[in-house]
Amino acid sequence: MYDVAQIRRDFPILSREVNGKPLVYLDNGASAQKPQVVIDAITRGYAEEYANVHRGLHYLSNLATEKYEGVRDVIARFLGAPDPQEIVYTTGTTMGINLVAYGWAMPNLQAGDEIVLSVMEHHANIVPWHFLRERMGVTIKWVDVDSTGYLNPQKVIDAIGPKTRLIAITHLSNVLGTVVDVKTICHAARERGVATLVDGSQGAVHMPVDVADIGCDFYAITGHKLYGPSASGAIYIRRERMDQMQPFMGGGDMIREVHKDSITWNDPPMKFEAGTPGIVQQIGLGVALDYMMGLGMENIAAHETRLRDYARARLDGLNWISVQGTTPDKAAIFSFTMDGAAHAHDLSTILDKKGVAVRAGQHCTGPLMEHMGLTATCRASFGLYNTEAEVDSLVDALELAHDLFG
Amino acid sequence: MYDVAQIRRDFPILSREVNGKPLVYLDNGASAQKPQVVIDAITRGYAEEYANVHRGLHYLSNLATEKYEGVRDVIARFLGAPDPQEIVYTTGTTMGINLVAYGWAMPNLQAGDEIVLSVMEHHANIVPWHFLRERMGVTIKWVDVDSTGYLNPQKVIDAIGPKTRLIAITHLSNVLGTVVDVKTICHAARERGVATLVDGSQGAVHMPVDVADIGCDFYAITGHKLYGPSASGAIYIRRERMDQMQPFMGGGDMIREVHKDSITWNDPPMKFEAGTPGIVQQIGLGVALDYMMGLGMENIAAHETRLRDYARARLDGLNWISVQGTTPDKAAIFSFTMDGAAHAHDLSTILDKKGVAVRAGQHCTGPLMEHMGLTATCRASFGLYNTEAEVDSLVDALELAHDLFG
Repeated sequence: MYDVAQIRRDFPILSREVNGKPLVYLDNGASAQKPQVVIDAITRGYAEEYANVHRGLHYLSNLATEKYEGVRDVIARFLGAPDPQEIVYTTGTTMGINLVAYGWAMPNLQAGDEIVLSVMEHHANIVPWHFLRERMGVTIKWVDVDSTGYLNPQKVIDAIGPKTRLIAITHLSNVLGTVVDVKTICHAARERGVATLVDGSQGAVHMPVDVADIGCDFYAITGHKLYGPSASGAIYIRRERMDQMQPFMGGGDMIREVHKDSITWNDPPMKFEAGTPGIVQQIGLGVALDYMMGLGMENIAAHETRLRDYARARLDGLNWISVQGTTPDKAAIFSFTMDGAAHAHDLSTILDKKGVAVRAGQHCTGPLMEHMGLTATCRASFGLYNTEAEVDSLVDALELAHDLFG
Repeated sequence: MYDVAQIRRDFPILSREVNGKPLVYLDNGASAQKPQVVIDAITRGYAEEYANVHRGLHYLSNLATEKYEGVRDVIARFLGAPDPQEIVYTTGTTMGINLVAYGWAMPNLQAGDEIVLSVMEHHANIVPWHFLRERMGVTIKWVDVDSTGYLNPQKVIDAIGPKTRLIAITHLSNVLGTVVDVKTICHAARERGVATLVDGSQGAVHMPVDVADIGCDFYAITGHKLYGPSASGAIYIRRERMDQMQPFMGGGDMIREVHKDSITWNDPPMKFEAGTPGIVQQIGLGVALDYMMGLGMENIAAHETRLRDYARARLDGLNWISVQGTTPDKAAIFSFTMDGAAHAHDLSTILDKKGVAVRAGQHCTGPLMEHMGLTATCRASFGLYNTEAEVDSLVDALELAHDLFG
C-alpha cells in the first residue's frame, strides 16, 4: 500500500508555505526534495562521523570510508549493475557524461567519427559532444522525435553507419516525458560494436532500471534528482569500456605512483575519482536510494502513472493549454504553453503566487525547442510525493492565469 | 580574545569519544571538522529552502539562487579578489586545478613548453600537469626545497626560461608546513609574462590571503579543509586569464545557446560551471568562511602560531622523533618519523587507540617523499580549534608508542 500522505511527512519542506499558500512542488524535473532520513544522514555525517576517506588509519577515517564505499553497493543494486566496481562516483550526470567525453571518447574517436543523439537530449548530453565536434572534427547525427514526442528506436538504429562510434541518448525526456526504448537501441548498437551512453537523470527517478538488461555501456545518474544531496551522483561503466578509458581529472586517489617524470594509475573505479570526493553527499545518496528502494521502484512508478493519468485528463480539459509530449506511456512530466499572449515565464509567476512551483524556459533543451518551434514552455514535473490534489491545485492556478491573461 | 574553549563548543564532533578516549583531532590537513552553523545551514538548505538554482522563477528557486550566488561575494572577500565574477565555483582544489589544466593550459601550451613545480606539490598540483606532459609533450621543471623544507623563491624565478608558461606552486606545504613566498614568485613571473597558479588548499586555511597582493593568476581553495562541506570549493581566476580559457565541463548553465550544429558560451564565471552545482554545499561554504572571518584570520593564524611553537618545543624534546620541515615560520603541521622499527602506519594506529587522529602515508606527495628519502610519515596537522592540551595528548601517545616499539 503506497501511502502518499505518510510519505509526504518524510519530507520536511513539503509542509511549508510559499507566498502564504501550501507549497505545491512540481519542479521535480529540475531537482527533488529530500526526505528527513537523508538530511539526518548528512547531519550525522558531519556532526559525529566526519573525516577524510581512504588515506587515514584512524577510527573516524575508517568509519567514513566504510560508509562512503558502501554506497557503491547500494548504487549497483539500484541500477542492476553486476559489479559495484563498475560504479564510478561523480557529482552528477553532467560530470558523468563529461567523464565519458574526456575519458573515453576523446582518446578513442577521431575526425569524421559520428556520435548519434536524439533531438530531445538535455544540454548535459549535447555540449560534451559539441566539444568533440569543435575540437576534433567529430560529427553529431541527430534523430528526430515525431509530433507526439515518440522516438522510434529503429530510427536511431538506422542512423548507425560505419563511422558511428557512440549513441548517447536519454532514458526519459525531461521536457516531453517520453520514455525511450533504450534496450532495443543498446542491444542493436552492441551487435554493431557501437558504444551506448544512457542519460538516466530522469529515467532512474521514475522507474526501475537494470543496466544489465538494457545492455548499455554507460548509464549516468544524478543524486539531487533522486531525492539525494546536491552534487552527488554516479555513472555505471561497463568493465570493458573502463579498460579503454584514460583518466579524466588528475589528483589524489586516482594514482598508484607519482614520480617526477612518470605516473601510474589506480585501478577503476578509483582511476576516475580524483581528490577528496563528496564524502557526505555520497553517503546521503546511498540513504536516498535505500529510501526509494524501500518504497519500491515499481510502487513509485505505479503511483506516478496514476498521477500522470489524472493530470493528463485534467489538462486535456483545458482547451487553451497545449501539452508537448503525448506518448501513451510517458512519465508524469507535462510541458505546456498557453494559447494567447501569456509567456511561459509569466505563467509560472502566476502559479508561484498560488504556491505552485513549476519551471519555465527551454529546460536545457535548445535543439528540442527549435524542433518544436517554441522558445519556452512551462513544465510541471511530478515526483513520488505528489498527489492528485496537487494536480487540482495546478489546474486551479492555471485557470486563474487564463482568466488574468485571457 | 581568542577563546578556544568557546570555539570548540561550536564543533559538535569535538565532544565525542574515540576508542573510549576524548577525540584529539589532528588530521586537519586531510579535512577539517564543521561548526554547527555550517551543519545548520545545510539542514536549513534542504529542509526549508531547497530548489534548483538559476533556471526557476518560483519562490524557492529564487531563494536558493540568491543564497547560492551570494557566496561568490563571501569568497571574493575571503580571498581579496577584486571582483566576485572572478570566482569560479568548484568541488575543491582538485577540480579547480584540472579546470586550469584543461581550460587554460591545454589550449594555450604546446609541445616543449614548460611548467615549473616545486618538489613539495600535492598530487592535485602534479597529476594534471603530467597529463599535459603525456598527452602534449609539455615539460615539467622541478624546483627542490632545502633540508629544512625551505623553498627559495629565487630558485623558482631562476627556473623560468623562454619556454616557461606556468608556475604552479603551493602556498603552504601539506607535509612540511613550509609557507611559500608566493608573492615574490608571482610578481616576478608576471613581469616575465608567465602565468601563476597557487594551490591554496592549505594556505587559505591558516592565514589571511589576498590574491590581489599576491599577484597570482589562479588561486584554488577547497571547502572541506576550510571547515565547510565536502565537495565545496572555488578558484580565483584573473579576468584576463578567463578570457584565454575554453570551457572545461559541458552542460547546462555554461552555455548561451545550443543548436544542432553550433554553440555559444555563457560569460565567465558561469562559462566554467556546468550542470546543477553543489547548491547546498556552496551555501555551507559561505557560512564556513563567514565563521572564519568572524573569528578573524589574523587571530586564527596567531592561535595556530602559538600551537606550532608549543608543539615544536614538545616534539623537540623527543629525541627519537625526526620532524620533517623545520623552517622558522612554518605552519602547525608536523610530519615525523620515529627512529627504529616502527612504521608510520603502526604509529598512527597506536595513537588512534589513545583517541589521537593523525594521518600516516605519503600524503599525496610522491616526489617530496622521494626527495626526502622516505616512504611514509606520520602527520599531526592542527586547526583553529586545537589546544596545547591536545599537543600534550599527542606527545603522551607518542611516548607510549615509543615504549611499545622501543
